[in-house]
Amino acid sequence: MQKVVLGFSGGLDTSYCVKYLTEEKGYEVHSVIVNTGGFSETELQQIEQHAYKLGVKTHTTVDAVKSYYDSIIKYLVFGNVLKNNTYPLSVSAERLSQALHIAEHAKKLNAVAVVHGSTGAGNDQVRFDMIFNIMIPGVEIITPIRDLRLSREEEIEYLKSKGVEMNFAKAAYSINKGLWGTSVGGRETLQSKGMLPEEAWPTQVTKTGSEEVKLGFVKGELRTVNDQSFDHPAQAIQYLQTIAGPYGVGRDIHVGDTIIGIKGRVGFEAAAPMVILKAHHALEKHVLTKWQLSWKDQLAQFYGNWLHEGQILDPVMRDIEAYLENSQANVTGDVFVQLHPYHFQIIGIESKYDLMSSKFGKYGEMNNGWTGEDVRGFSKIFGNQTSIYHNVKESNQ
Amino acid sequence: MQKVVLGFSGGLDTSYCVKYLTEEKGYEVHSVIVNTGGFSETELQQIEQHAYKLGVKTHTTVDAVKSYYDSIIKYLVFGNVLKNNTYPLSVSAERLSQALHIAEHAKKLNAVAVVHGSTGAGNDQVRFDMIFNIMIPGVEIITPIRDLRLSREEEIEYLKSKGVEMNFAKAAYSINKGLWGTSVGGRETLQSKGMLPEEAWPTQVTKTGSEEVKLGFVKGELRTVNDQSFDHPAQAIQYLQTIAGPYGVGRDIHVGDTIIGIKGRVGFEAAAPMVILKAHHALEKHVLTKWQLSWKDQLAQFYGNWLHEGQILDPVMRDIEAYLENSQANVTGDVFVQLHPYHFQIIGIESKYDLMSSKFGKYGEMNNGWTGEDVRGFSKIFGNQTSIYHNVKESNQ
Amino acid sequence: MQKVVLGFSGGLDTSYCVKYLTEEKGYEVHSVIVNTGGFSETELQQIEQHAYKLGVKTHTTVDAVKSYYDSIIKYLVFGNVLKNNTYPLSVSAERLSQALHIAEHAKKLNAVAVVHGSTGAGNDQVRFDMIFNIMIPGVEIITPIRDLRLSREEEIEYLKSKGVEMNFAKAAYSINKGLWGTSVGGRETLQSKGMLPEEAWPTQVTKTGSEEVKLGFVKGELRTVNDQSFDHPAQAIQYLQTIAGPYGVGRDIHVGDTIIGIKGRVGFEAAAPMVILKAHHALEKHVLTKWQLSWKDQLAQFYGNWLHEGQILDPVMRDIEAYLENSQANVTGDVFVQLHPYHFQIIGIESKYDLMSSKFGKYGEMNNGWTGEDVRGFSKIFGNQTSIYHNVKESNQ
Amino acid sequence: MQKVVLGFSGGLDTSYCVKYLTEEKGYEVHSVIVNTGGFSETELQQIEQHAYKLGVKTHTTVDAVKSYYDSIIKYLVFGNVLKNNTYPLSVSAERLSQALHIAEHAKKLNAVAVVHGSTGAGNDQVRFDMIFNIMIPGVEIITPIRDLRLSREEEIEYLKSKGVEMNFAKAAYSINKGLWGTSVGGRETLQSKGMLPEEAWPTQVTKTGSEEVKLGFVKGELRTVNDQSFDHPAQAIQYLQTIAGPYGVGRDIHVGDTIIGIKGRVGFEAAAPMVILKAHHALEKHVLTKWQLSWKDQLAQFYGNWLHEGQILDPVMRDIEAYLENSQANVTGDVFVQLHPYHFQIIGIESKYDLMSSKFGKYGEMNNGWTGEDVRGFSKIFGNQTSIYHNVKESNQ
Repeated sequence: MQKVVLGFSGGLDTSYCVKYLTEEKGYEVHSVIVNTGGFSETELQQIEQHAYKLGVKTHTTVDAVKSYYDSIIKYLVFGNVLKNNTYPLSVSAERLSQALHIAEHAKKLNAVAVVHGSTGAGNDQVRFDMIFNIMIPGVEIITPIRDLRLSREEEIEYLKSKGVEMNFAKAAYSINKGLWGTSVGGRETLQSKGMLPEEAWPTQVTKTGSEEVKLGFVKGELRTVNDQSFDHPAQAIQYLQTIAGPYGVGRDIHVGDTIIGIKGRVGFEAAAPMVILKAHHALEKHVLTKWQLSWKDQLAQFYGNWLHEGQILDPVMRDIEAYLENSQANVTGDVFVQLHPYHFQIIGIESKYDLMSSKFGKYGEMNNGWTGEDVRGFSKIFGNQTSIYHNVKESNQ
Repeated sequence: MQKVVLGFSGGLDTSYCVKYLTEEKGYEVHSVIVNTGGFSETELQQIEQHAYKLGVKTHTTVDAVKSYYDSIIKYLVFGNVLKNNTYPLSVSAERLSQALHIAEHAKKLNAVAVVHGSTGAGNDQVRFDMIFNIMIPGVEIITPIRDLRLSREEEIEYLKSKGVEMNFAKAAYSINKGLWGTSVGGRETLQSKGMLPEEAWPTQVTKTGSEEVKLGFVKGELRTVNDQSFDHPAQAIQYLQTIAGPYGVGRDIHVGDTIIGIKGRVGFEAAAPMVILKAHHALEKHVLTKWQLSWKDQLAQFYGNWLHEGQILDPVMRDIEAYLENSQANVTGDVFVQLHPYHFQIIGIESKYDLMSSKFGKYGEMNNGWTGEDVRGFSKIFGNQTSIYHNVKESNQ
Repeated sequence: MQKVVLGFSGGLDTSYCVKYLTEEKGYEVHSVIVNTGGFSETELQQIEQHAYKLGVKTHTTVDAVKSYYDSIIKYLVFGNVLKNNTYPLSVSAERLSQALHIAEHAKKLNAVAVVHGSTGAGNDQVRFDMIFNIMIPGVEIITPIRDLRLSREEEIEYLKSKGVEMNFAKAAYSINKGLWGTSVGGRETLQSKGMLPEEAWPTQVTKTGSEEVKLGFVKGELRTVNDQSFDHPAQAIQYLQTIAGPYGVGRDIHVGDTIIGIKGRVGFEAAAPMVILKAHHALEKHVLTKWQLSWKDQLAQFYGNWLHEGQILDPVMRDIEAYLENSQANVTGDVFVQLHPYHFQIIGIESKYDLMSSKFGKYGEMNNGWTGEDVRGFSKIFGNQTSIYHNVKESNQ
Repeated sequence: MQKVVLGFSGGLDTSYCVKYLTEEKGYEVHSVIVNTGGFSETELQQIEQHAYKLGVKTHTTVDAVKSYYDSIIKYLVFGNVLKNNTYPLSVSAERLSQALHIAEHAKKLNAVAVVHGSTGAGNDQVRFDMIFNIMIPGVEIITPIRDLRLSREEEIEYLKSKGVEMNFAKAAYSINKGLWGTSVGGRETLQSKGMLPEEAWPTQVTKTGSEEVKLGFVKGELRTVNDQSFDHPAQAIQYLQTIAGPYGVGRDIHVGDTIIGIKGRVGFEAAAPMVILKAHHALEKHVLTKWQLSWKDQLAQFYGNWLHEGQILDPVMRDIEAYLENSQANVTGDVFVQLHPYHFQIIGIESKYDLMSSKFGKYGEMNNGWTGEDVRGFSKIFGNQTSIYHNVKESNQ
């Protein structure tokens, strides 16, 4: 029997794929689930049991949290990446990590085909297709849900006819959870107007009042939270999530451009990611020069967009990562953040690389290091070309 | 006697300038105040009386609110400009409008010199110097506060010795108010850490609960608020401020790069500006294409930075304005915003130019207009170069 | 019978399409040729006769030279567009003009399908497909050459079997000629190394010695050549081509990225385009400010790339055109160019908008308008942030 | 006596400085000359003798050729940097290397002041001022020529009165020679029009006919010329100069923006630099992906401009260098160049990283790796958003 590797989530679509591929197509199905931080141990075990009950030959769980951080999230933090200034790319980033691990698994098993359960209407199909085309050329890509254009009802009917027992109830909202945030889609997000109701959010707001949290960055990476150290930044993110999540901060709805050209709208909650990104940016504003800040922004905007479009394997991404890495040399220090229900405030920073120092000048008070005469000369020269331009313009009137 | 024109605010520094220039230097001082939306009628009358009492020959009040919007704020909205993704350039933009009007006044009066009260430690001196150098070359620029390096105490002593009566008490925070927001500086903002206390904010939070507001944009400009029309967008902004201001939204602390190279930190409250910018951006995300959004961002970031640095008269700014103006052709529609104490949420939009239409595809459901096969082909070609790259790379290993 | 519109060049591929579609598929074929400056009257008549002999129902010749200039070439000049700093986009630009006219024709005739003769290996298929998809959605796109994967020999055999008489000899090089240059492909260009031999170039080098030519620009457009005026800039370009072409200037080989991800190499000769682009740029360097030059470059690089990729209908292109148009306000003046065999040299410019004026400063001599003290102050402030940065760095060591 | 360090060239201005500072100001003058490749051993010895005759306490010659390449030129090659697409920054780059070495020397000698001979009309004053302000804060900067505004005649008269014997004749053109090209200023370059006459060029055209040269790059650096290896790329550049120089290639006139806002025009000859830059770029076009090429261009344009403006010590330059360095991983291979009098032609490249391979597709012929159907799907999706845009537009008409 021919081996195929299937990216498996345990949901309706990929459950259908297992049955369809084994029973209708005669493949030996090897399922794999890549955990980027969204699944608990218990959930992973249930998914494994479910896979075996559906009839997979083997099921593999990949713990990708750290590698996900090291290869992608780290750079999103360095670049303060928010797509369209809104969305931390929670799902976009995760899919790429998953696709890379699935491709790796297919290569290891020497599979003849790799299967993903994406529909034909979204971003994920492109991400999976592209990564597989690039990483495992020659390996066939099978996409039953996209190709058969099955309705939810048809899938359920088929699975029931095969004696599969699982929860077939449709959730009001479809949820995707990972280290870098949770997306929430359905009902309101399918139209251009409407906010998700309170109950739709996976993390409920249980904290009232306010709380200060102190984030310690070393070369751009989160290393401590309230002076507590972690072996790996991914753990610091997860710990911060437990503190900030119950405040309901980092919730928003994003509307953006899918890879396939349509607009898509999605809700998300990303408490730790949003707090980290804003805190990191605040620190950078103190320790980087004007043009360092400006070029980082431009490169990071592209980096985020190109990543979103699944192009993580383009070597230009490595070039930009080299830039971002280099730019973080002095991004070391503490950032103080005040958490409130539904919003938070950056309170300030402490860093030995802080360029804002009373030694060099105070807003609204007298300076040393330069004189008023220096600035007068500066203004003269700084506006010189525009002066000449207007002078020439006048002389032509 | 030689005429000088003085940009006058009624504060200690410019009061000093009047006395110093008339009594010590023998100039005929003509004061001018440019109102960009921060002064009430009563305040303007008090300032006028104060000017005459100090001994100016004439005092002129310029109502610049509409021209300020038309020449600057409009483009900041088109570009969703937030310096370092934080600050709406409240003061930066205002100073340029003021400098331009003061230069105009000096030209009209045929003054031999123009005077501004800036110190040698901030941005404003450069903005005034440059605009004056460019607009009225040959007219001397006099800056007593910068040149004499006087302390506050010395100024007060001098004014008292001349019999001037005014409020010499130093405010805890220095406030600058205008159409596009209010800056608040002092104490906490002079260091890298610390949030302004509640009482420091000029607009106190008096509204509780929440409230939905509907903003109507036509070609990128705010034209209606809750379906109420206005003769001029500046009025719509001011009206929105009365609604949103008491929620305390749009408050933050910005740290950024001054023109003279030091970092500066300043608090600001800008309820209407922040709500408008985020609402306008939300509308754009629905009606503009991916690359329209991307290029606008890049150009607008530069536009904001260059404006901040006082370079409004560089013709490149006209080129960018032409771009921004053209990009707004379809930015027409309503945006719905939920206001809460200290935060607000964009709820959605309605526009006949909305590119997110169920006609063209729905997230997570089946599409028409293209097939799964089309996307499969797309993914193949979209990743083709990177495939070749990795293929070549492998063959070299 | 169902009507189809066929973009027709008279060559082997499109001749095959006529026969195949009429005789095998039973369509009523309406051929159309869009002349963007590459065909003489005689050639166009011969192509028309050939079309009718092949059996088209109607044949239409569109004279697109002026509209091609007005809608595309004008902006390539404004932007000094050279793809990868090498190639004036001769063919890329032309295809889009052709596709737009063919779509227009199909709409007018109410055709059920539109046909292009592109293969599956190049850029043109994407340009035609995309423009047709966008301009005439619902009209089927038929591409026999791409779909049938026919070899040249098979096409010839088929046409011969149908009694078609035409020149079946394969040219050593495939030539594509238009207003904005001529491409030359074959043999050497199919590999990464090798220059086209002298005889491969359509325009032979017949002028020796050298010659000065004077180009007159008005708002960025070429209006006079050696003081001779033209009704339309396209005519000025054609006239300049007769002067500069015989010098063999503007020849090169370009290697670039095709839309489908492979690298492609192509020779081109573009005497007038290259002289115009360099002359126009020289004029701009005298009349535009530093940042005007810089932003034009960035936008124009994208504009050229996106045009190359067939995306002329993306509204971002209209936004960039608005920018470019506005930037040309002062790009008026004469440029002097020395032509030599195989190379040319810009000699200088004359413009009333020239910002290089002895009034404002001379290289290496003393200036007025500012003092050495002004520059000393400027240098102090201009380097202030970097000074602070190094100061902070030292203090941490 | 107080020590001052003087950047010394042996010319009129810096000769004046020695005498003026020792005799009028009583300083102990330590002269230093930094050779960036423009001086022969003999010239350096003559300059040393001249310095001692003028009365310096010590004279130091710094051989900076290799460090100049390693710290600056290398990155200009990586970035294919041509200012305004014309000028290789021959002088701009050199001055920075010199300023850095002079600052180092002043620090070593513990000098109280550092002296440069720049006038108040050009770029160099800013470069020297800034580097000195940043590197040796607190050390006074003395600029006699700028401050005293002396005419050439006054300087000569003074030196003669002090018994100095040297060549006082003014050269028709002022020449500045270094590793990365030679600038030629005077007469024609002081106006907007006019080419330098043949005799003005330091390197005369002595080669006729043509000659092929093969350049070997390793990770973006020139390592071999015609298969001859060199210990250091600077030597390869110098060797190539002996081959290409006598063809008179790489000559042009540049007009650009000085740091102080005026336009400046300067002739230059840079045979080896121009050949290297074009060859390097040709290689990159074969081995880098589309977006690698595009982002390199943008970053490098800024890098060149910012370097030109003397800002080499801004840490953003280190970030960009990290980017450029990373981008060169595959820029290894041979480039073939045909040299002719006054012009040259890139003939092609050979590289094991060449992405243009007949394996992946041939221009104008059939491909493998993808099908016509794939491209059809690609075109559909690639134009999807613009399709939707035009669809929405139509529906609003």
